[in-house]
Amino acid sequence: MTSSEKKAVVLLSGGVDSSTTLAIARAEGYQCYALSFDYAQRHRLELEAAKRVAEALKVKRHLIVRFDLSEIGGSALTEKTIDVPKDKAEEKGIPVTYVPARNTIFLSFALSWAEVLGAGDIFIGANAVDYSGYPDCRPEYLRAFEDMANLATKVAVEGKLRFRIRAPLLYMTKAEIIKRGTSLGLDYSLTWSCYDPTPEGRPCGHCDSCLFRLKGFEEAGLKDPLLSL
Amino acid sequence: MTSSEKKAVVLLSGGVDSSTTLAIARAEGYQCYALSFDYAQRHRLELEAAKRVAEALKVKRHLIVRFDLSEIGGSALTEKTIDVPKDKAEEKGIPVTYVPARNTIFLSFALSWAEVLGAGDIFIGANAVDYSGYPDCRPEYLRAFEDMANLATKVAVEGKLRFRIRAPLLYMTKAEIIKRGTSLGLDYSLTWSCYDPTPEGRPCGHCDSCLFRLKGFEEAGLKDPLLSL
Repeated sequence: MTSSEKKAVVLLSGGVDSSTTLAIARAEGYQCYALSFDYAQRHRLELEAAKRVAEALKVKRHLIVRFDLSEIGGSALTEKTIDVPKDKAEEKGIPVTYVPARNTIFLSFALSWAEVLGAGDIFIGANAVDYSGYPDCRPEYLRAFEDMANLATKVAVEGKLRFRIRAPLLYMTKAEIIKRGTSLGLDYSLTWSCYDPTPEGRPCGHCDSCLFRLKGFEEAGLKDPLLSL
Repeated sequence: MTSSEKKAVVLLSGGVDSSTTLAIARAEGYQCYALSFDYAQRHRLELEAAKRVAEALKVKRHLIVRFDLSEIGGSALTEKTIDVPKDKAEEKGIPVTYVPARNTIFLSFALSWAEVLGAGDIFIGANAVDYSGYPDCRPEYLRAFEDMANLATKVAVEGKLRFRIRAPLLYMTKAEIIKRGTSLGLDYSLTWSCYDPTPEGRPCGHCDSCLFRLKGFEEAGLKDPLLSL
């Protein structure tokens, strides 16, 4: 198998991090299979962004898996009764935008698809710097998922494939991520970050995700094509 | 918290193993939350069985999560183009009824719900004896999932809850499972096992799942209320 034939499954939400991760996987020569989720999130606009990014970055296939996490609840992103915090409202510990076991669910579907495709590498835009509050963005979690994945699957048990969870952004700041994506030619006007869009479908500019994005572009010395201070 | 208030999430397919597992969890005094999946499996009749069993065993809530694994494929249970083997047709290694990473996907949703409910115990009817071919039914896999789960979640990281993956049937034969369920008063006429029902909605009697069930009842010296040789 030549380097240009390596396959990877890339989790793609359509935000800055996952879109940059996809650009990095492409630059490493992977044939990319993008995987997105419609899980009844209040910011479903990100799925339109995911489609735009997947097309622009010429993925081999873009699969959107649908399920309803609002039935399980427990997060401001899936329960309408929990407000998305604005302008860094006082919040201790892990933020209410944490969705219980979300990355575990996402990575599990990615693992299933990767096994069928024969793709050893699963890319995720997890970041332990800006989002250190999310337990399922930490390196020790990702390592534990990888260990489990290699015991869970037929191809791994039969020795045909070894899975690697790749998180190339893990130790990068948002500014470094944006600079890296820009250097790879990624057009960030295609992406979407806001957790709580306005009824007109514009970014709120005040949720954590908007604030991290604004700060990232500012520190990178670049202009965000979507948002501005 | 008294013993009668302990909560558990129980994976419930509606088959012999998961129904017996639910009966065991109930007998241990857990308040049970049953979780089933409509994943475009060809044997969706099992969902009706899951509903019957959940009601008979008085679970606190029965949640059915829907997603489409046929888009991912790779298994005789989700792809119409792969036949379900009959009468123990020659098959080497892991059977074609293996669904890539299925238990990982199921346990991930269970973990998400358990976190929201504050349930430390997740029950699964995994069995390493009769189904030793499935990698995600082995004890080393279940331990690795448990380790990952305790790094993945807010409640575990904050020290509020420790997750345990409970597989009480792991080392039991099918006959032992059926005897145990019978002793707990479980009515197996409510359950469903067949992978490939007839167009009239009856068990085929020839797939692996039917054959294991038949053999189990026979060895237990009991009459299967659903199937007979």
